[in-house]
Formats: sequence, structure tokens, C-alpha cells
Amino acid sequence: MLNPIKNTKIYEKVMEQIKQLVKEGKLNRGDKLPSERDLSDQLQVSRTSVREALRALETLGLVEAKHGEGNFINDNLENSLLEPLSIVFLLLGSKSEEILELRKILEPETAAIAAKKITNAQIIELKKLADELNNTENVEASAFLDKQFHYKIAEASGNLLISTIMFSLSSLIEEYIENSQIHTFNKDLVKVHHEEICRALETHDCTAASEAVKKHLEFTSVKQNQAF
Amino acid sequence: MLNPIKNTKIYEKVMEQIKQLVKEGKLNRGDKLPSERDLSDQLQVSRTSVREALRALETLGLVEAKHGEGNFINDNLENSLLEPLSIVFLLLGSKSEEILELRKILEPETAAIAAKKITNAQIIELKKLADELNNTENVEASAFLDKQFHYKIAEASGNLLISTIMFSLSSLIEEYIENSQIHTFNKDLVKVHHEEICRALETHDCTAASEAVKKHLEFTSVKQNQAF
Repeated sequence: MLNPIKNTKIYEKVMEQIKQLVKEGKLNRGDKLPSERDLSDQLQVSRTSVREALRALETLGLVEAKHGEGNFINDNLENSLLEPLSIVFLLLGSKSEEILELRKILEPETAAIAAKKITNAQIIELKKLADELNNTENVEASAFLDKQFHYKIAEASGNLLISTIMFSLSSLIEEYIENSQIHTFNKDLVKVHHEEICRALETHDCTAASEAVKKHLEFTSVKQNQAF
Repeated sequence: MLNPIKNTKIYEKVMEQIKQLVKEGKLNRGDKLPSERDLSDQLQVSRTSVREALRALETLGLVEAKHGEGNFINDNLENSLLEPLSIVFLLLGSKSEEILELRKILEPETAAIAAKKITNAQIIELKKLADELNNTENVEASAFLDKQFHYKIAEASGNLLISTIMFSLSSLIEEYIENSQIHTFNKDLVKVHHEEICRALETHDCTAASEAVKKHLEFTSVKQNQAF
């Protein structure tokens, strides 16, 4: 059987070359890519192949197309795994309980690592987020602040791979559990939990941090189950 | 304050429609998609937009293009998060130690869940993999079998989201740590560890399973650090 001539895979080769430049540090986060025309000239491939490669890299979150400005290496990676995770989630027919099970594994241990490494500046930021959350009545703002609170802890672990995965998992939960409005449910309890977590992190007590996050997630899970 | 009008591109709308069909269960894993021409007719968009959407979905691992056969909803999700994780890894400038730290959090707890849920058939499969690994001298075959062994445990946890993430993390390690040939290093120790893990799973001892996997990963981490 004859194989179609390589034409179909040219866009993948273009993707590879751009990824290679990132790998070698020649392109960094926020950098602007050459124009489609320049890429097509330099790589000696059609504009169509260049555009297909750019679309694919955009979907993967490596490239960000800014209207009228061109294509940039993405600088904001927080949600970059959301789309791929969401597709895996869909195709596996996963349930939201599975995301929660994963969070319950990841977050307590990540908090324990954060307790070791957290800086004073990060603790101040964390407390500020907890305060803002306490003083907000708006449901959407609360959800956003809560997510930031947990993301900050993950960030403090110093493992950006973990914090990026955790942030995308939170977004995935938001996408699939529309009515997990835990804050409207028992705001006082969330406040107490967050204070406990802050205290454990501040005193660099790994076990207490892990336990406090675990307790908090057990509570979250009960609320989400009730919401179904 | 005004929000910028989102300039949703046509290929993104095509992607959305295909994703929606998957979400609604109208397209399932392994199903064939309509031809590019039919998609273009049905959605009333250009072939170029259809092709861009299909490329993007292919890169995301939702769609698999088979030569001369057309486009299918991907049936093999094992490695579907590798490409996105690898891009995040690159852009964050992460180190391989960060993947290992994540594995050390994920795998012991996943083994504990697996110990609860594992079936007799799965235990037999697992032991068979461990046996094959013991009888293989080939380095590449060993690496493959070892990966399958750990993947089977994750699968036995019943949480396919976790096992998919774990499998992609293993592939990411392979991609970035070229000389992590732990099997050539101390095959006997790997054998003892795997036997311990099997025993814990067989007796449904969650704590022992978690501890055995933890010990095994500590050993892996030492070997990888030496390889640098």
C-alpha cells in the first residue's frame, strides 16, 4: 500500500521546530514568534502548514494568538492543562468524584511540602486572600478567591508542575460541577479551616498542614456530593 | 468596565461542536468522524477551518487520524497528557526532580486505593508482568514492562484519571531522563520491591502497599540523581 507523501505531517514538523526553540531556551515565555509569512519563508513550507501548526500549539497552550499583535509564547500557564485534562475526562467518562479523589491525594502532601518552603511574603499573601474571602458576599468572587488560596499553597511548594496540575483540576471541577457553591453553604467553617491551614504553614508544621488540608477537602467532598 | 469581545475563531467553534458530541455521548471512543468534506458541508464552514480543528484535536489527543481511513475519536488515552504536560514542563523550566516529587505523592496513595479495589484477575496480570520483567535482559523491554507494572497498579485503583496522569508522567520522565536505566543497575532490588508491592496488594493491605511503593520510589530517585 502506498503511503501519502509526507505533506500531511508538515505541520507537525513546524510544531517540532518551535518546541525545539523553547527547549533550547531560544524562545521563552512571553516572546513574540516571527510572523506567519516569515515562518513560512524560513521553514520553506506553505502558510497553511504554518497556520495549522500555530493553531495546534495554541490549542495546546504553548502559543497565544493576540489579536492584531501576532503569536506569542504563552506566559500564563495556570490553566494550560485544563483543555487536555477536560478531554481525557470526557473520553474516559470520568466522574467528578475521581477529580476529588485525586485532589485529596495531591493537596495534603503538597501543603506538607509548602509548610517546609513557604516564605513570610507568601504567608502574608495567603492571609490576605483568606481575609478577602471572609469579607466577600459575592459567590463568584468567593470561588475565585478560594481557588487562588489553594493555588498559592501549591505555588509555595516550589513545584510549579504540581501547582499547574492542581489549578487545572480546580478549573475542571468548576466546569463540571456547576453547583458546588460551598461558600454560600457554610462560610464560617471555610474560614476556620483556612485559618488552621495558615497557622500550620506559618509554623512550618508539615503534618498539621497536611491534616488541615485533608480535613478541609473532606468537608468539600461532602458538600459536593450533596449538590448532586 | 467593558470586556473585549472574544474573537472566537471558526476552527474553535468546529472543535467545540465535536467536543459537545463527545460530551453528549453521541461520539464515543473509537468512533469514526464524518469526512472533512461532510463536516465542512454540515457545519457550513471551509475545509480549511475543519482541517485546522481536526489538527488541533489530534494534537490534543481527542482525534486520531488513520492513514487512508479517516479521523477517529481516540481510543488509546494512555499517553494523551504527555504532549500537554511536556509543554508545561518546558515552559516552566521544570526539573525532573519535580516530576519525581509528584510521583512520590501520587503513587503510594494510588497503591493504597488499589489495595482496596484490586481484583484477582488484576493481581494475576500484575504478577505476570513482574515475572516477565525478571526474565528480561533487554533494557528497553524492561523499561516498558516496569512502566506497565506501575500503570496496572494505578488502573486497579479504578480512577482512570489518575492512571492516565501517572502514565503520562512516566513517559515524561523517559523523555527527559535519558539515562535512568534503573534496571541495569540493581535488578535484584527491583524484583524484591515488586514482590513486596504485589504481596501488599494481594492481601489488600493499604498501608503496606503505600509503604512498599514509597520505598521503591525512594530507590528510583537515588538512582536518577546519580545518573545526572
